[in-house]
Amino acid sequence: MKEIKTLDCTIRDGGLINKHQFSLDEVKTLYYYLNISNMDYMELGYKNSKKLYSENEYGLWKFCDDDVISEVKSSQPSNKIKLAIMVDVGKEDISTIKKASESPYSLIRVASYVKDIKRGIELVNYFHDLGYETSINIMAISRDHGIELTEALDLVNDNCKCDYVYIVDSFGSFYPIDIKNEVFRYRSIIQNKKFGFHGHNNQQLAFANTIESINNNIDIVDSTLYGIGRGSGNCSSELLISYLIKNLPNKYQTINLTSLLEAIESLKFPLHKDFNLGYNIPLMITGILNKHPKSAIEFNKNDTIKYYDFFNNII
Amino acid sequence: MKEIKTLDCTIRDGGLINKHQFSLDEVKTLYYYLNISNMDYMELGYKNSKKLYSENEYGLWKFCDDDVISEVKSSQPSNKIKLAIMVDVGKEDISTIKKASESPYSLIRVASYVKDIKRGIELVNYFHDLGYETSINIMAISRDHGIELTEALDLVNDNCKCDYVYIVDSFGSFYPIDIKNEVFRYRSIIQNKKFGFHGHNNQQLAFANTIESINNNIDIVDSTLYGIGRGSGNCSSELLISYLIKNLPNKYQTINLTSLLEAIESLKFPLHKDFNLGYNIPLMITGILNKHPKSAIEFNKNDTIKYYDFFNNII
Repeated sequence: MKEIKTLDCTIRDGGLINKHQFSLDEVKTLYYYLNISNMDYMELGYKNSKKLYSENEYGLWKFCDDDVISEVKSSQPSNKIKLAIMVDVGKEDISTIKKASESPYSLIRVASYVKDIKRGIELVNYFHDLGYETSINIMAISRDHGIELTEALDLVNDNCKCDYVYIVDSFGSFYPIDIKNEVFRYRSIIQNKKFGFHGHNNQQLAFANTIESINNNIDIVDSTLYGIGRGSGNCSSELLISYLIKNLPNKYQTINLTSLLEAIESLKFPLHKDFNLGYNIPLMITGILNKHPKSAIEFNKNDTIKYYDFFNNII
Repeated sequence: MKEIKTLDCTIRDGGLINKHQFSLDEVKTLYYYLNISNMDYMELGYKNSKKLYSENEYGLWKFCDDDVISEVKSSQPSNKIKLAIMVDVGKEDISTIKKASESPYSLIRVASYVKDIKRGIELVNYFHDLGYETSINIMAISRDHGIELTEALDLVNDNCKCDYVYIVDSFGSFYPIDIKNEVFRYRSIIQNKKFGFHGHNNQQLAFANTIESINNNIDIVDSTLYGIGRGSGNCSSELLISYLIKNLPNKYQTINLTSLLEAIESLKFPLHKDFNLGYNIPLMITGILNKHPKSAIEFNKNDTIKYYDFFNNII
């Protein structure tokens, strides 16, 4: 197996379920253990505009101020893992993004729907010229998968300076065969880029789809500690690393896995009341129906198990 | 896709986590909905010996008396789904098993470790001669996978009258590639039999491995409602059926899925306090280390998150 890169986005994707209210200490703790895990990147959150989102309502990682990230980074004398942030097209405030050489993070990922791809490319190129590694993460492609996606990929191929193009299963509706097909499609349109995969677990396929993307020679994959992330969450970092110990033994050893187990223990994530993780019927339903998870997330706020009604309402 | 058979073993495998204490009404309710689901078989439990297990401690489905099964069967005027029971080598009481023509169930599955395969084959052949459909379910083959398994498969090929030979991932430690390899190995040794797959979800791969078995032209697959089963549970019936609606539309339609959603609602399984389902770190650890889940099940009885210690203790 070729060497792949790994990116833990626990704080960024997990932040979508707790309004980015992880404490600075929690993030420092995870940073400590991820440094031992031998993963390549840790994503902390969004560079969102404080004009759009209130600092009273949202935590530090909705805004990712440089001084906050610098404090995380300086908390460890040895910081092998690189830091990443995400910029969400339409919600961004890039005024505070300095040149890469003056910044505590190395990678900026731009999340864009297909319809916003031109702005997405513009942002990527701006960050690239500032000296960052960059990716374009095209969301919801299980929904926007026709000619509009082909055109978007053409634009990326022609104009985008990104290092990575991500295949993103936002709705958790892909089966392994879809991953194979999408990697093939992306590769057939886009030359001279590396590719990434970000999955969601609505159908309990996030790990399997990540394995399938690896089988198809992808270059970077995302995961989160304990699978914490929006909706049904993501591929678990500890499952991913245990797989890589078996398949990339030159890069990963047992200590890289046990550091993640210690992180779960230290952060008490399984006991965290804010997370409703694991297999969940409404989120499974949005996954199989290829719908945005927001209706299931709303439904889950009520203490009801009227699954049949839920299904019929969204079909 | 070729037509495959489906078997729901919620009451049998789920019974391993509640000492088979499903009420008769709960089983009738599930039987009602499974009849609508268009699944082919419903497995109810074990024909275990009452000399080995106390009726005070264990529920009806540990023993599967014919009159109890007949009561389930007669609760529905239309009973398209066939009933199945399991016989566990070394724990069985077969004295009450009548001829198939006088019995309320159609399929007897014999669960055998590799070391007990001769007795397993003996039992299968006895049931076959009574007129039953039969399967041999060889357990823990991720552990007993060397020459001993090859010899067992040779014996099955030479002597066993079963209809189905099951590949069983008892420890939930297989990746999709392992499924492909095992199906290939079984097929290369055993002629003129059909093949089945039964997975466990320790690594959140039960559904993905089931899909992979289908991709490799397996003949029958197991699943359980809401994934309820020993340890981390199994492939979810509702995920499986939603997949088959998309891939076998001549056999499965939306109503087959919604009947399962209604069953989950009616049985209130997600709220069932006895089940500790979903992603669970100790059970994940036994899965990745290819160990029997019993140590994780014991560990989970304590309210502790000392995962690092658990890992080091069993490695």
